[in-house]
Amino acid sequence: MKSAQRLLEYASSRGLNACFANPGTSEMHLVAALDAAPGIRPILAIFEGVATGAADGYGRIARTPALTLLHLGPGLGNGLANLHNAKRARTPIVSLIGDHATYHLANDPPLASDIVSIARPVSCWLRTVGRAEDLVAAGADAIDAAMAQGPAALILPADVAWSDGEPTPAANKRTQEDAPSWRGKVDDAARSLGAGAVLLLGGRYLSPRACAAAEAIAQKTGAKAIVETFPARIARGRGRAALSRLPYLSEVAAGTLSGVNAIVLAGAATPVAFFALPGRPTRLAPDDAQILPFATPTDDLDAALEALAEAVGARISQAQSAGDAPSAPDAGDAIDPVALARAVAATLPENAIVSDESNTLGLFTFDVCAGAAAHDWLTLTGGSIGQGLPVATGAAVAAPERRVVALQADGSALYTIQSLWTQAREGLNVTNVILNNGAYAILKLEMMRAGINAQTQAASDLFDLRRPTIDFVQVAAGFGVPGQRVNTQRDLTQALRRSFAQPGPSLIEVMFP
Amino acid sequence: MKSAQRLLEYASSRGLNACFANPGTSEMHLVAALDAAPGIRPILAIFEGVATGAADGYGRIARTPALTLLHLGPGLGNGLANLHNAKRARTPIVSLIGDHATYHLANDPPLASDIVSIARPVSCWLRTVGRAEDLVAAGADAIDAAMAQGPAALILPADVAWSDGEPTPAANKRTQEDAPSWRGKVDDAARSLGAGAVLLLGGRYLSPRACAAAEAIAQKTGAKAIVETFPARIARGRGRAALSRLPYLSEVAAGTLSGVNAIVLAGAATPVAFFALPGRPTRLAPDDAQILPFATPTDDLDAALEALAEAVGARISQAQSAGDAPSAPDAGDAIDPVALARAVAATLPENAIVSDESNTLGLFTFDVCAGAAAHDWLTLTGGSIGQGLPVATGAAVAAPERRVVALQADGSALYTIQSLWTQAREGLNVTNVILNNGAYAILKLEMMRAGINAQTQAASDLFDLRRPTIDFVQVAAGFGVPGQRVNTQRDLTQALRRSFAQPGPSLIEVMFP
Repeated sequence: MKSAQRLLEYASSRGLNACFANPGTSEMHLVAALDAAPGIRPILAIFEGVATGAADGYGRIARTPALTLLHLGPGLGNGLANLHNAKRARTPIVSLIGDHATYHLANDPPLASDIVSIARPVSCWLRTVGRAEDLVAAGADAIDAAMAQGPAALILPADVAWSDGEPTPAANKRTQEDAPSWRGKVDDAARSLGAGAVLLLGGRYLSPRACAAAEAIAQKTGAKAIVETFPARIARGRGRAALSRLPYLSEVAAGTLSGVNAIVLAGAATPVAFFALPGRPTRLAPDDAQILPFATPTDDLDAALEALAEAVGARISQAQSAGDAPSAPDAGDAIDPVALARAVAATLPENAIVSDESNTLGLFTFDVCAGAAAHDWLTLTGGSIGQGLPVATGAAVAAPERRVVALQADGSALYTIQSLWTQAREGLNVTNVILNNGAYAILKLEMMRAGINAQTQAASDLFDLRRPTIDFVQVAAGFGVPGQRVNTQRDLTQALRRSFAQPGPSLIEVMFP
Repeated sequence: MKSAQRLLEYASSRGLNACFANPGTSEMHLVAALDAAPGIRPILAIFEGVATGAADGYGRIARTPALTLLHLGPGLGNGLANLHNAKRARTPIVSLIGDHATYHLANDPPLASDIVSIARPVSCWLRTVGRAEDLVAAGADAIDAAMAQGPAALILPADVAWSDGEPTPAANKRTQEDAPSWRGKVDDAARSLGAGAVLLLGGRYLSPRACAAAEAIAQKTGAKAIVETFPARIARGRGRAALSRLPYLSEVAAGTLSGVNAIVLAGAATPVAFFALPGRPTRLAPDDAQILPFATPTDDLDAALEALAEAVGARISQAQSAGDAPSAPDAGDAIDPVALARAVAATLPENAIVSDESNTLGLFTFDVCAGAAAHDWLTLTGGSIGQGLPVATGAAVAAPERRVVALQADGSALYTIQSLWTQAREGLNVTNVILNNGAYAILKLEMMRAGINAQTQAASDLFDLRRPTIDFVQVAAGFGVPGQRVNTQRDLTQALRRSFAQPGPSLIEVMFP
């Protein structure tokens, strides 16, 4: 049996059941092997950034790794930006990256490149497999690493994939887990939490339990519970704690944290600016604030936060802060960010998943959706735009019974717009809400923040997406996804309702004046 | 003066006049500085693979570097595949890659990554500039390296860009060039060329002079003059030598080279298989063939080949092998690869540029176009698909007075389809000919070549682009490019003529049954 087939059978036996693929010649034996692992569903992406971003969305929802299938260094390069985001989210992913046959590399054929150098910055684990007999063991290590840490990259030369080789047994998985390190830190964390302290939340998944525990801790101690700026996944909506997020703009975030005396990190990192600005500090907490690392991003945050709640004597009950359901806007007025937020919050179906890359236009949506039906919210963890549509695509593969809503800025949508085709092909229940203001509006803002107040001609040109206007409805139709353009609040509400009521993907192009 | 501004003014003084940009926050000061260098035209791409591929097309035609402006590691990642192709073409490009402020990196903000690790595999030259005063000198070195070798990467932290600093003077450029190494090899090469030998041509640019010299050498010596499989740029058409290319399929290429006793490399590398196949050799020349490196890919091939012609006593005259002009197909029959080739060859305007990523469907086009009006032909040098439309875009910027024709396979077109928007924005004279067979046909072929004869269900699914069908005319319209779908030979000929007669971009979707 070819080792490629052994690898996929093994992956299937470990519960991996989706492979987001954009294969090439060097992966032909992996493609052939997919038939021998009928438990693994091959899902074609017509661009690798879709495949890696979809694996990220899949992993955040399924909490088990998807496979990706990528073609050599350039294929990995095309998928790199979304692996960067996935690494920041610590999403479990196992990327299978084909390479030339080992004996062919010395010939330096045209597609040869240093795959390891390209892969290392976006991988929590990395290995090039040199012998067929080692492949299954490497696959086992990759899956373990992906589960424990985040994206794993397995580089697979073609001759290793096509060779037969009795596999050396995979190392026994540790059955006895070490006690998590947060256990020894509960008392210190508990002592630090009081008025003037912040419990900063983050990590792979802020579940209903984790958020409820955090809220109870805050109420008991007087500390503020705040979610990191870009959480990988957080449970939200009616009946759940309505925690707020640390603002994106560093000057605003620093204001939120001013006067804070201690920050207990529960899955989050020490808060820093997204970008440095001339003359402004890059660390957001006051210099004299104590920073207490408590739980890491990959820890079991439910357990950690419930233990912390117990230590402070907090009783976890139904969420106190859950918001009220807003009413849907139904006027013929133009759409603005508040109307967008209300329309989404009022119409969101129960148990929806929101993939949020709405940038400037989505400013209010997260907060207003605290009053929406219960849902999960996924954000742009690594700051590399072009994540929203692929993540929505993968989330819909992981949870076919749930409605996925991509709140997607126009400029960012264009990096991975090919996602729409995979959604159409697989009949995924995704509502793609494209927020069209015809500009990289975030960059206009960042230019001012950088102290460049007179916007130059070059900048005006480079931030402008209206010359020519992009027609997202036509692009979507070209990829097989039906779409509609809306200009009024009423039409937006109706379009959302219609989209949520019918299976399969659709696109709503929301025009902002 | 901010160092970003000094850098761009210096680049402008060196004759650089185009910047293919997809900037982000860390490049704001470079964007602002573009106004201070009015000689540099900023050209926005809505995806970085378009920017880098366009810089490749620009550099192949202009023979001077374009700048690219890329946003940190992920932005570079998105542009990596086409930098890979450009590196294989040795195209002069200077990429400016923004990074976080030097003092912010230790904070590990979300967008931080190891840019050097990502950039090294696709760069002939690479430097991170740590101080404002060193930036202009680094720019000088980057431009020199790009001209001498190929893509150069200059990593520019935000605080270096926004700081002022009197530049240390750039090193004096060498005014005295070393004698090129091919001069000492002319006599050996001349002695090896005879019946049974091959003069293998490649490099940055096979000009009319280079091709005519090669043809004269072949006629005089009895050797065969053959062009490498994927030349960066070759002059072709009526009045020019009709040299043939080494076939892509390694088994066919090995046949072409069977019995050969010597291969003189003039800008080409030792011929090797594109991919290894189980049980097949990867070096294409017979084991006992002598390989003589003569001129390197970046040498002045005009001079080298003319010196070689003189050494063998060949007289260079008007090309002997120029083809006859084919007639345009005008029947209502379905379109096949031969009809495509004839339609293109019969209608191609004088002095056109062809960007060829036509893969399986373009099998005959290059050879038949030997009889077309004089033109330049650009190919997929690094094998990383998604090059054709961006290269066409950049070539049209470099040569606004010439018609550019992208012969583009459907699957490959989808990686960088966003090129169309930049073409519309800039009013570029590009005819995008999309060859739609609804499949990754090349992979079906490669699967058989890999010895997997029974095509599996997974493979059938993963090579199929017809579920759903992609409507390229609609996608193009969404990006602002008018298009037309053609099903017959007559309509194809007419659509090509119409497109060539009117300025600006257009798209022709050619349906293959």
